[in-house]
Amino acid sequence: MLKKSRLNAVLGRMEKMGLEQMVITDAISILYLTGVWVDACERLVALYINKNGGNRFFVNNMFHVPKNVGVHMVRFTDTDPYLKMLSDCTDHTKPLGVDKNIPARFLLPLMEMGAGTSYVNASICVDETRAFKDEEERQAMRLASTINDKAMEKFKALLKPGITEREVANQFKEIYQSLGADDVSFPPSVCFGPDAAVGHYRCGDVALKEGDCILIDTGCIKDNYCADMTRTFFCGKVKNEEHRKVYELVLAANRAAEAMIKPGVRFCDIDAAARKVIADAGYGDKFTHRLGHFIGMEVHDFGDVSSANEAVAQQGNIFSIEPGIYLEGNMGVRIEDLVLVTEDGCEILNSFDKELQIV
Amino acid sequence: MLKKSRLNAVLGRMEKMGLEQMVITDAISILYLTGVWVDACERLVALYINKNGGNRFFVNNMFHVPKNVGVHMVRFTDTDPYLKMLSDCTDHTKPLGVDKNIPARFLLPLMEMGAGTSYVNASICVDETRAFKDEEERQAMRLASTINDKAMEKFKALLKPGITEREVANQFKEIYQSLGADDVSFPPSVCFGPDAAVGHYRCGDVALKEGDCILIDTGCIKDNYCADMTRTFFCGKVKNEEHRKVYELVLAANRAAEAMIKPGVRFCDIDAAARKVIADAGYGDKFTHRLGHFIGMEVHDFGDVSSANEAVAQQGNIFSIEPGIYLEGNMGVRIEDLVLVTEDGCEILNSFDKELQIV
Repeated sequence: MLKKSRLNAVLGRMEKMGLEQMVITDAISILYLTGVWVDACERLVALYINKNGGNRFFVNNMFHVPKNVGVHMVRFTDTDPYLKMLSDCTDHTKPLGVDKNIPARFLLPLMEMGAGTSYVNASICVDETRAFKDEEERQAMRLASTINDKAMEKFKALLKPGITEREVANQFKEIYQSLGADDVSFPPSVCFGPDAAVGHYRCGDVALKEGDCILIDTGCIKDNYCADMTRTFFCGKVKNEEHRKVYELVLAANRAAEAMIKPGVRFCDIDAAARKVIADAGYGDKFTHRLGHFIGMEVHDFGDVSSANEAVAQQGNIFSIEPGIYLEGNMGVRIEDLVLVTEDGCEILNSFDKELQIV
Repeated sequence: MLKKSRLNAVLGRMEKMGLEQMVITDAISILYLTGVWVDACERLVALYINKNGGNRFFVNNMFHVPKNVGVHMVRFTDTDPYLKMLSDCTDHTKPLGVDKNIPARFLLPLMEMGAGTSYVNASICVDETRAFKDEEERQAMRLASTINDKAMEKFKALLKPGITEREVANQFKEIYQSLGADDVSFPPSVCFGPDAAVGHYRCGDVALKEGDCILIDTGCIKDNYCADMTRTFFCGKVKNEEHRKVYELVLAANRAAEAMIKPGVRFCDIDAAARKVIADAGYGDKFTHRLGHFIGMEVHDFGDVSSANEAVAQQGNIFSIEPGIYLEGNMGVRIEDLVLVTEDGCEILNSFDKELQIV
C-alpha cells in the first residue's frame, strides 16, 4: 500500500530541486514507497510520481502485484512499447527526475521520445527520505539486529580450533533462518588471524588455531530490513600484549563515537572522535576506512559517517559505527554496532557483548 | 591479460553500427575482454575502447589489478574527477557507444561534458561477441557442467521423505564447493509437488512426501563460467498415469529439440520443435516459457531460444534447452541441459541421466 507520508517527503525534496516529476526505477526505493517488492531483473519496473498527481506504477504482467496498491497500475507485456507508455505519462514540458541507476537502455529511449525537457539525477530526494526511519522501520531494524545478536551467540559457539573460515560461514544462512530471519543481508566475513587485516575478505579454507583473532562481520535480513554487526574474538588466548591493546583501542573508539551521537552532531566529528582514539595511540594509519555507513532496506543505504560528511545526525537516522585496526600479515580487530539517533542521544541496536572474549 | 581477438570482434561489430568508440562499464564484459575482475559495486569501472587505439582501463585505486593487463590503466581515487578524466579520453567529435546498463549517475555527467556527439546503446556488440564461446570458454563451460552433473547425484541422495525443500537447498553451496566449484550460479530451485508448477519458485518449508514430483533447477560457477541444469524426480512412486505421461512428453520435447541443433537452424524452429511435441499432446498452454537462454559468464547471457528469435544457431553458441509442463496445484516437470553448437550438430554438456527416476 502506497506510503503517502514517504511519498510526500520525496515530493517535498524534489520541489526544492525544482522538480515536479520523477521516474523511480530502483526496486528497493519502489518497495519503500509502495510496499510492493518486484524483482524484475532486467525488465522495467518504474514508479512515476508527479506533484500534480498522475502517479503511475509500471509493472510487467509476469510479476504479481497485490490488489489496492493505492496507485494507478500500468501493466504490460514484453512485447508492449512500455517505454513509450511511460513517456506518454510524463509531462514533456518539464524537467524529468530520474533514478541514479536507471540504465541507458531505458534512459536513452526516454530521452529520444522527449519524456522531459531535461533529465536530472534526482535519487537524492528518495535517498535522503530513506535516511529517516519512521516508527515502522525502526521496529523492523530493531528486530533484525536482535536476531543478529542471537545469531552471533551461535556463530561464536562454532569457533573451535581446526574449523575453517568457510565451514563457519557456510552455516550462517541456516542459523539465521532458524532464528526467523529471511536471509543473510550480505555474504558474511569470517576471518582468522592475518585474514582479519585483509579488506573485504570473505572466507577461505584457513583453519582456526590458538592465538588467532576471529573477526566476524555479518548480518541478516528480516522483513526487508538489514542488520550488520562485527565482533572480534580470540581463540584460546590473546597472543600478545599488542593484540590486547589493539582490541581495547578499537573498543574505546567504538564507545567514544557512540557516546557523542545525538541530533545536531556532525558525522565528520563522530568519525574524528573515533579516529582520534586510535591515532593518539599511534595506529591512525591502520584504521583504513570510514567509521560507518547508513543502513536500512540496503546494507549500504545512502549516507556515511566519514571525514567528508559535514551533515549533522538527525533523529531517525540509523547507521553503523565500526572502527577497526588492521595489522597486515598479523591480525585485525573491528567492532561494529548499528545505532539509531533518538531525540537526545542514540539507541544502540546491538546488545551483543563487546568486551574482549576468548573462545 | 587483454583478449585481443575478443576485443577485435567487438570493434568489428561496432564498425558495422558506425561506431569507433565505446565505454564498457559492465563488470562481466570487462572481465571477458581484459581477464580482470573488478567488483566495484557502486564505483565506476570502465573500459574505453577505440578502433584507432587509445584504449584505457579506468579502475579505482582501492581495487587490485594485476600488472600487465595489456591496456593503459587509469587509476583514480574517490575524490578525483574520474568522469572528467574519462571524458577527456573520448573523441568528442564522434558518437559514443555506451553499455546498456551504464547508470544515469555516470551517463548524464558524460553527456553534460560532451563526451560524444551522441550516445548509443552499443552493448549488442559485446553481447553478440560473448555469444560465441572460444575454446578456452568451451572448456570452462564443460568443466562447470561436469561439476553440476556430479552435484546432482549428491542432491538426489538427499531426497528422503520428510526433508524440506529448504533443507535440501541449503546444502547445495557446500556440496558444490566440495566438488571444486566456486559458488552457486543462482539461488537454486527445489520444488516438491505443486511447488514445481510455480514460476520462479525457489524453496520453502514444504516436506517431501511419497508421490511428489521433485524439480531441481540448479547450477554452479567455476572459473567465472556458469552451469545450469534441471532434473525432475519422483518420490517413492509416480502418483498417476498423467504424471508419467507429462514426464515422458517433456523428455521427448527436450530430445526433439536437441536432435535438431546444428549451425544454420533458427532458434525459433528449435523452440517450435519442442513446443510441438507438448502441444500435440494437448499441453501447449502448460509450457509457459521460452525453450532456452544463452549462458556463459552469466546464467542468462544475451540471446534466447524462443519463438521470437529468428537468428540461426552458430558454432560456439551455448544455450539451455529446458522444456516444461506445469499443472497448477498439482505438479510440474522440466528437463534442462546446456548444449554447445558444434560444426555439424551439438554437444550436450550435461550427462546426468534424463530417464524417469524414482527416489
